[in-house]
Amino acid sequence: MEVIETIAQMRELRRAMRLTPETTLALVPTMGALHKGHGRLIQRALTLATNVVVSSFVNPLQFNDSRDLASYPRTPEQDQDICKKLGVHYYFMPKPEEIYPPGFLTTVNVSHLSKKLEGASRPGHFRGVCTVVTKLFNIVQPDFAVFGHKDAQQLVLIRHMVRDLAMDVEIVAVPTERDKNGLALSSRNVLLDDDGRRKALCLNRALRRVHFLVKKQGITHVGELLQAVRSAINSAGDGVELDYAHIVSRMTLEELNHVERGNTLVLIAARVGGVRLIDSTRL
Amino acid sequence: MEVIETIAQMRELRRAMRLTPETTLALVPTMGALHKGHGRLIQRALTLATNVVVSSFVNPLQFNDSRDLASYPRTPEQDQDICKKLGVHYYFMPKPEEIYPPGFLTTVNVSHLSKKLEGASRPGHFRGVCTVVTKLFNIVQPDFAVFGHKDAQQLVLIRHMVRDLAMDVEIVAVPTERDKNGLALSSRNVLLDDDGRRKALCLNRALRRVHFLVKKQGITHVGELLQAVRSAINSAGDGVELDYAHIVSRMTLEELNHVERGNTLVLIAARVGGVRLIDSTRL
Repeated sequence: MEVIETIAQMRELRRAMRLTPETTLALVPTMGALHKGHGRLIQRALTLATNVVVSSFVNPLQFNDSRDLASYPRTPEQDQDICKKLGVHYYFMPKPEEIYPPGFLTTVNVSHLSKKLEGASRPGHFRGVCTVVTKLFNIVQPDFAVFGHKDAQQLVLIRHMVRDLAMDVEIVAVPTERDKNGLALSSRNVLLDDDGRRKALCLNRALRRVHFLVKKQGITHVGELLQAVRSAINSAGDGVELDYAHIVSRMTLEELNHVERGNTLVLIAARVGGVRLIDSTRL
Repeated sequence: MEVIETIAQMRELRRAMRLTPETTLALVPTMGALHKGHGRLIQRALTLATNVVVSSFVNPLQFNDSRDLASYPRTPEQDQDICKKLGVHYYFMPKPEEIYPPGFLTTVNVSHLSKKLEGASRPGHFRGVCTVVTKLFNIVQPDFAVFGHKDAQQLVLIRHMVRDLAMDVEIVAVPTERDKNGLALSSRNVLLDDDGRRKALCLNRALRRVHFLVKKQGITHVGELLQAVRSAINSAGDGVELDYAHIVSRMTLEELNHVERGNTLVLIAARVGGVRLIDSTRL
């Protein structure tokens, strides 16, 4: 595995790759602190392309809360070991000052969609995501880019951006990886203590409850389903605080009145012992 | 010359080009209504790369005034003739509904720089420019893109955007082409009547006056130079209305107090017989 630290190096490498027409390239953009969920993304990338780049960049532009940025876990050596073992070809870890040089002014925004849900709770978050993803795409020029389903709204926005701006990359999505208790894997999980880890299971429990109500009891009324989500979260007890729960169209992220099979996303965000977690599922 | 009407066609063509590593591609983005100024851009492009694409797209997103959009000259057959004669390889004329499909939401913005000067007079103009240029770059994937000096702020913004987002394209600028009387060539000049054409020379006269005062009289005080610009425009008589005159840093577009040799732009916008014209020069 080759470790790449500058845009110029990455670009030169990409130019060289193009000389061999059989070469294809898949990018897995990460903020480091890799876990098994990232592992799944990387494994998928390895099936898509002859070469895989994992980028590792904790993007300050997508953090609206400086404490969240400061506490975001960083495990660079461990990340490189994981990538090496999985068979990743290139590990791209640009410096913040190269991604955001002095006088940086340009942003990419998916208006409307970026202001909803997670975007309403974290103003500017998705502008930061779309801007850095655009820049990574411009640098790496991947044929494929792999994202997880867990950040469901992010996936919707990135697909929309790629379509709108005719970016020459195929977006591939991978289902959310969960631990044996059902907790969605997240880099932020390491910030949970034992009590938090137990209480955090309420997010998955709420999503499973929605599936049960829809599939087993034929309930499609969103108000009723959201009520069940709120109960599941609230029953987790002290230190758990629901930020939002929404049931929306997968295409438009508009609130639905009734579940539309194949076009429905359930999105939850909650604070558990001060750690903000999100989870989602499709119906 | 091959005429290309869809994004898919253009993309396929670009893929095929990459199979020959010696192939390089230069893009000249235009809104059609080609004149000799565009001719210069195209000639420059032909010296840069083995293949030249001229794109022709009247971009609705960069018009803040719907009458301006409606009256913008359109001469598609003539444009294709000009390109063919100059030796252009590909003429790309996408349809508006392919550039802006239903539900289009994504914009690229060079904040701060886009709100000044021309951007203050035409809100949203540069967001429209940056968005469509990004999309054209993503579709055509040129090695070089050629722009004119006349739209001086546009050039500054595009260079800034390319740097900020690490777009893999080299921006090449070509000096403003003028008619024998000094009028900067512009597609909007055809909207001028004889009287307007004569009066429009005041823009060039104002810029030449600034050069004279700086070079021959050693005046560097911006206030004094702007006073001379205003006099030159006002002396053109009825039907001429100055929109703005600014003397700014080429790097930051900030107003200067004193001319800085090599880093100074003079920008003028004026209405002449109802037609909005811009001109600029470097000091």
